Amino acid sequence: MEPRVSIITLGVEDLDRAAQFYETMGLKRDQRFVENVAFFQMGGLILALWPREALMEDSGQAALGPRGSPGLALAYNTRTPAEVEAVLKVAETAGGRILKPAQKAFWGGVQGYFEDTEGHLWEVAWNPDFPIDKEGRISLPA
Amino acid sequence: MEPRVSIITLGVEDLDRAAQFYETMGLKRDQRFVENVAFFQMGGLILALWPREALMEDSGQAALGPRGSPGLALAYNTRTPAEVEAVLKVAETAGGRILKPAQKAFWGGVQGYFEDTEGHLWEVAWNPDFPIDKEGRISLPA
Repeated sequence: MEPRVSIITLGVEDLDRAAQFYETMGLKRDQRFVENVAFFQMGGLILALWPREALMEDSGQAALGPRGSPGLALAYNTRTPAEVEAVLKVAETAGGRILKPAQKAFWGGVQGYFEDTEGHLWEVAWNPDFPIDKEGRISLPA
Repeated sequence: MEPRVSIITLGVEDLDRAAQFYETMGLKRDQRFVENVAFFQMGGLILALWPREALMEDSGQAALGPRGSPGLALAYNTRTPAEVEAVLKVAETAGGRILKPAQKAFWGGVQGYFEDTEGHLWEVAWNPDFPIDKEGRISLPA
């Protein structure tokens, strides 16, 4: 794992309300992704808003009960598809728990989820549409 | 609010266990801050591990019940002390809720907390020891 965070996804009850909040805070919503999600380029990472139910379903957390991080996930994006499984394995070795093994994601890449020893949720993902530069900074599509 | 996140603080049950996890993941713990906290420089932001109770107490969340983000806070660090109150005011105007008004922090800076419309916890802080560069990237002390 390189020392970086790619995406912070906040699970939200009301996407319009939450997007309005962050726009009022001065952030600029990306206008190309507006269907059931909001993205904000935050320097070298991305802030995402996504309905809490979708996030819980995507991460397989629904079955877990109240332990894990409710309604929020950090994401570590990889440079290659194979890295997703490799990072998940390291997380398991380190004492974390794999919640969703590496698999094709509905948005076209590869993803998996783990929780750390304290129950914090991390997605590990390879997304060919979101470029990562040499310094590890991720960007929404140019 | 500039488009950036300064610190991701994960509340932990067991600091040694959690620090070990992230070190095994390949991250390098800063050896200058080891008392009741762990810091990892993550490119332009900082990942912090802090006992959950301390985080809850610092943010005034203990009194709030189960709503807010349990055990995790994002931080937006300002360039000047006065900005802390200004950012909190914008958050309130935007529909968020101030949990802790701007005040002196025990670590020597100025801080406050708000939650967004969905209950996610943000600290707003001015910390003269953690420099922020022109691009908004924060660093642990040099």
